[in-house]
Amino acid sequence: MRIITDKSTLLESINIVQKAVPSKTTLPILEGILFQAKNGKLTLVSTDLEMGIETTSNVDVIEQGSMVVSSKIVGEIVRKLPDSDIEIETRDNFIHIKSENSEFKVLSLSTEEFPELPTVSRDKGLSLTSSMLKEMIKQTIVAVSNDEIRPILTGVLMEVNGNQVTMVALDGFRMAVRVASALNDENFKAVIPGKTLVEIGKILNDNEDPVNIFISKNQILFHIGDTTVTSRLLEGEFINYKQLLPTEYKTKIVLKKDSLLDACDRAALFAKDSNNSIKFEIYDDVMNIKSNSDNGDVHEQLNISKTGDDIEIAFNPKYLMDALKVINKEDIAVEFTTSVSPSIIKPLNDSEFLYLVLPVRRR
Amino acid sequence: MRIITDKSTLLESINIVQKAVPSKTTLPILEGILFQAKNGKLTLVSTDLEMGIETTSNVDVIEQGSMVVSSKIVGEIVRKLPDSDIEIETRDNFIHIKSENSEFKVLSLSTEEFPELPTVSRDKGLSLTSSMLKEMIKQTIVAVSNDEIRPILTGVLMEVNGNQVTMVALDGFRMAVRVASALNDENFKAVIPGKTLVEIGKILNDNEDPVNIFISKNQILFHIGDTTVTSRLLEGEFINYKQLLPTEYKTKIVLKKDSLLDACDRAALFAKDSNNSIKFEIYDDVMNIKSNSDNGDVHEQLNISKTGDDIEIAFNPKYLMDALKVINKEDIAVEFTTSVSPSIIKPLNDSEFLYLVLPVRRR
Repeated sequence: MRIITDKSTLLESINIVQKAVPSKTTLPILEGILFQAKNGKLTLVSTDLEMGIETTSNVDVIEQGSMVVSSKIVGEIVRKLPDSDIEIETRDNFIHIKSENSEFKVLSLSTEEFPELPTVSRDKGLSLTSSMLKEMIKQTIVAVSNDEIRPILTGVLMEVNGNQVTMVALDGFRMAVRVASALNDENFKAVIPGKTLVEIGKILNDNEDPVNIFISKNQILFHIGDTTVTSRLLEGEFINYKQLLPTEYKTKIVLKKDSLLDACDRAALFAKDSNNSIKFEIYDDVMNIKSNSDNGDVHEQLNISKTGDDIEIAFNPKYLMDALKVINKEDIAVEFTTSVSPSIIKPLNDSEFLYLVLPVRRR
Repeated sequence: MRIITDKSTLLESINIVQKAVPSKTTLPILEGILFQAKNGKLTLVSTDLEMGIETTSNVDVIEQGSMVVSSKIVGEIVRKLPDSDIEIETRDNFIHIKSENSEFKVLSLSTEEFPELPTVSRDKGLSLTSSMLKEMIKQTIVAVSNDEIRPILTGVLMEVNGNQVTMVALDGFRMAVRVASALNDENFKAVIPGKTLVEIGKILNDNEDPVNIFISKNQILFHIGDTTVTSRLLEGEFINYKQLLPTEYKTKIVLKKDSLLDACDRAALFAKDSNNSIKFEIYDDVMNIKSNSDNGDVHEQLNISKTGDDIEIAFNPKYLMDALKVINKEDIAVEFTTSVSPSIIKPLNDSEFLYLVLPVRRR
């Protein structure tokens, strides 16, 4: 294999595929990136066996072929090279990387050992704009569980009915639900590993380019410009999230998102000793937020617009702030039923996003 | 005590004094900041017993007095408060911090226990511009030793003869010498702890404001605008650095600083297995830089302008890069004598900065 490309193109490709290179693995070949050069194109491939990434760029292919090189080493080298042309050549058991007055010789890994990515049939497909998928991931990933005891909850449910796409994540303490319109009609359900979506979120741009998503029995494929990401799906039934949603509320408050976020952030400073919670006292048009610890206490007061009953309720401030940080709207509504039942945070007059959070029982 | 100030003023003062608050200490009072309000001024004081910082700002003093509060807690609170007026009041054993709709009550620490900063007589003084002192610190601190076995080398020698100030640091592997002109004439020698200078470097601005430095037997004081930093001096004789300087050289090369820095940075990638060194092969108008490891090797070639003999010599790339990163000039000269004797890096045609570095013996 022998190719000539430029630093910025190559570095962009490396940055993309490095997202699937495992940080630790018992299978050393997975620490490598597969380079494949053919017909004026260079394809870089990486996988941790759960997720695989392939990205293609136009390069000058002088001699077609393939090679595998340590992701860490090639990444460090290319990052430090001047902003100029880079020539990569395989010779014997080494990879030669040349640019201007620099020449690196790096031990090559075995191309035969590099695992093949699973193939995903492109029969069943869904299209979303890049910015929309990015936002849906951001708004649901906050509620994904890290607890491997219930593996299904480490994923995000993607439910497609006609052109309506719903993404849902829940971890036993809170649930995030995001609804959006797809660019086409389809019907399926899949639970995508949270880790895959985190990495896809980093690859996606904030533009209107379509992302094509294809699904087969155990695999999902995201087609994003010159990059494809494949991932295994999580097996098992996702929780019936709809039955978790309260059908009514007794108290509803309307307020500014940033005021609540800032107040929770300050109140959280002294929440450690009160069961890691902050207390809301809601009466008339005022909400007091209180917390206390051995070091002192905090009292915040917010003006709200309230309908329904007065209520006192306590929350883990992190769970509230996670939601408030990903809501893009200025005005929000919070709905309460009792001080021990789930509350709902959502943008005012907007049903695209909904966040359910369980209160904390105060000592 | 009761004062009203604004967030940005208070936060700036807190950020300054936090530089002397020890991150861990067996004396809990040192984790606090002393607030003193009097005559329209608020002074914040901190100390780790080695270094002390005092900074003063204009505030609205409603009731004069003093208090001590945990640096960590007050810092977190003020950082999270809105950009607005802040009222601070001591009442019983508590400190009340109020801003807009937020009120914090924080346990106060004992003002009696807070140690007094040492007084430094202002008889013997030196003035430097802020930007000059900042640059001198940056250029010498790289060569300060972290090794407590020879405490004197954890400091920087400041030697003043007339209006010439010299700062010197050395750690047994390299030495940095910076010479500058003071704004007045004076004569003294002092060894200032490196840690003190690091923190002072962060407080200094890149402007032409004078910094007044005063020295007494065991203490030094830096007067920087509304802030004074006092520090104990290191005891003992600093090494006679002048006798370490080579009086002649056999090879001198002239080249671009950034080319050498970038080449060393790349060559360092594979230096681990070769005694953590990179090799220079200097002949005619070419310098080859080489390194190798189990994973591969690097070969860099630089065009140089050489006078004197050809030479092969090896260095720890970190020591070279530390110097190259703090030289502000584009053209540099490197002088060599033999492959086992110290080399000198300096800006071309400029005697303000000089960096001596020992070579590494290659296996």
